Amino acid sequence: MKFKVDRAPLLRALSHVNGVAEKRNTIPILANVLLEHDGETLRLTATDMEIAVVEEIPSTATRAGAVTIPAAVLFEIVRKLPDGAEIEFNQESAEEPLHLRAGRYATSLNVLPVDDFPAMVAGDLLHHFTIQAGELRTLIDRTRFAMSNEETRYYLNGIYLHVVLEEKKNYLRAVATDGHRLAKVDTEAPLGIKSMPGIIVPRKTVTEVRKLLDNDSADVEVALSETRIQFRIGSILLTSKLVDGTFPEYSRVIPQNNSRILRVSKQDLAAAVGRVAAISQERSRPIKLTVTKNHLTLSAISPDQGIAQEELDENSVTYDSDEVEIGFQARYLTDITDQIDAEAEFALADSSSPTLIRDTEQPAVLYVLMPIRV
Amino acid sequence: MKFKVDRAPLLRALSHVNGVAEKRNTIPILANVLLEHDGETLRLTATDMEIAVVEEIPSTATRAGAVTIPAAVLFEIVRKLPDGAEIEFNQESAEEPLHLRAGRYATSLNVLPVDDFPAMVAGDLLHHFTIQAGELRTLIDRTRFAMSNEETRYYLNGIYLHVVLEEKKNYLRAVATDGHRLAKVDTEAPLGIKSMPGIIVPRKTVTEVRKLLDNDSADVEVALSETRIQFRIGSILLTSKLVDGTFPEYSRVIPQNNSRILRVSKQDLAAAVGRVAAISQERSRPIKLTVTKNHLTLSAISPDQGIAQEELDENSVTYDSDEVEIGFQARYLTDITDQIDAEAEFALADSSSPTLIRDTEQPAVLYVLMPIRV
Repeated sequence: MKFKVDRAPLLRALSHVNGVAEKRNTIPILANVLLEHDGETLRLTATDMEIAVVEEIPSTATRAGAVTIPAAVLFEIVRKLPDGAEIEFNQESAEEPLHLRAGRYATSLNVLPVDDFPAMVAGDLLHHFTIQAGELRTLIDRTRFAMSNEETRYYLNGIYLHVVLEEKKNYLRAVATDGHRLAKVDTEAPLGIKSMPGIIVPRKTVTEVRKLLDNDSADVEVALSETRIQFRIGSILLTSKLVDGTFPEYSRVIPQNNSRILRVSKQDLAAAVGRVAAISQERSRPIKLTVTKNHLTLSAISPDQGIAQEELDENSVTYDSDEVEIGFQARYLTDITDQIDAEAEFALADSSSPTLIRDTEQPAVLYVLMPIRV
Repeated sequence: MKFKVDRAPLLRALSHVNGVAEKRNTIPILANVLLEHDGETLRLTATDMEIAVVEEIPSTATRAGAVTIPAAVLFEIVRKLPDGAEIEFNQESAEEPLHLRAGRYATSLNVLPVDDFPAMVAGDLLHHFTIQAGELRTLIDRTRFAMSNEETRYYLNGIYLHVVLEEKKNYLRAVATDGHRLAKVDTEAPLGIKSMPGIIVPRKTVTEVRKLLDNDSADVEVALSETRIQFRIGSILLTSKLVDGTFPEYSRVIPQNNSRILRVSKQDLAAAVGRVAAISQERSRPIKLTVTKNHLTLSAISPDQGIAQEELDENSVTYDSDEVEIGFQARYLTDITDQIDAEAEFALADSSSPTLIRDTEQPAVLYVLMPIRV
């Protein structure tokens, strides 16, 4: 193969595929990117056998062909070439090294056989819908922090995407939970989505798709089956396996009758949580909230270091119900306040029951946080 | 003790002392900062028993006294308090917790006995001089990268400061080397320095002093003996033990007769080294320089990945001597080019002899780099 390509689009494409290529070198070819040229289009593919990403960029070839070379090395080289460089790729024949030239820089990269590069079969993807990149980003950003890391609960290691019917309207819903907290976001159901099965999109796929969503108004075409999902964003196609498991019946943990409503400024709450938690260097820093009429006291105890507390008054807090004392992990509270724009609404039951947290300006978003004993 | 202090100066002082306090908790009180108030001045002290830093800030106390509390916790709390906060410190009596209050935030921090806080004795510091912060920063920045990390060669784990007489003029000289490369900077000898002994300033002291040198034109008062050095910068006093060892006779490794002079644009060289080294992911990436008339070829071979090369021509290179081939570790070459402003001058002998590298605009700075076989 022999072709030329501009640095900027190549670098952009490599930044997309490089995250998918496998860094650990158990199967060497998974560290490679597959370059294929049909004469008019250069196609880059990387896969870890769970996810495959393919991106196409326009380029003119004097000789079509295909080759695989290490993704990280190519990315690093292209990144370090000067702005505006034109890069020439040339492989005399299969198995020969690939020669790359830009200005006075030249490299010959060892290749691995194209035939060994694993193809990812998407199979029949019967369900299709289109969603705006900005909408998909909201679904991801508001829920991803609540995904579990525990390998034993693999069915929680992703975002659960499914369709719900509520008050005669269909919604596309994203849910993530690690058993300690839950995040749920609804968006208006795109056309044609009604019959889609509930699916669990794995953590790495969430991360890689999120990187591709920088243009809010772009359309994302989604196709899926029970076992695969595919995202098409412009000239990029990302295909991923789904988590083969059953997402738990999450609706049971969403409390329905928490009647004690606390409204609190997000900014004041977040600052106070940070200061009060600073007393402890433990990873799980418990923090106690004591709520009385238009008043919130946050406190923390560290056996080693001492105690800390901060009070928020009616300038930051609205509450008109019985006194409640409830404990949360500081980090979990912070993860949620990070997602809230201006005002958080806590619906409390008592000190041992799940608490509902909402953004007063984002009715489609809901969080559940389990209390801890303090 | 009971006093008030503004957040900004306290935060600044804590950022200086916090780096010195010991993070590993083998001796708990070394993680603490000692706060002492004499009624007019708050004095903060932290030490790891190798270095002690003391900073004074003006503050009015209603009750003088002293207390020790965890440095990292106090730093974190003060950092998270709002801009412009006034912080009140109050300890009813010794051994009681220290109460800290700012607005509606309050904390009680457990203390450790003031008497247990180790004092660092500077002893008689007979040698004194004053140097501008900007000068001292140059001595540090141009040499610190060449310090050794190897614990067995503890006498190389620092910067060697000493006075030399050259062409009837005295210079204060900083030298660092790890056996593979050497960096040497001279500055005009400050008054009163002539009789000072050669000393090795340890790595951590170099790091901590460097943090205090943000104002170029400030005066730094240095006092030292054979075993201690003390830096006074404004209201900060840093005292450190010196490395108890003998710095090697470095002048023997500085080649005197390297007659092949290569001048090369720093920017072009650094970019080419980065691109050529990108072929290899090894930590020690050897890179070969082939020098011919007004021409420099950089090349690297990775057995796994392939080969790379870049050529620099008369637009970047001046050379008018015999052809030389010489290999260097890419990272060592980059460490040196990072220090060079515009043009590097290599004085070469042959492929196995130490190479001299200079910044053509900084005659007081000199680097030596050992070649490796490529």
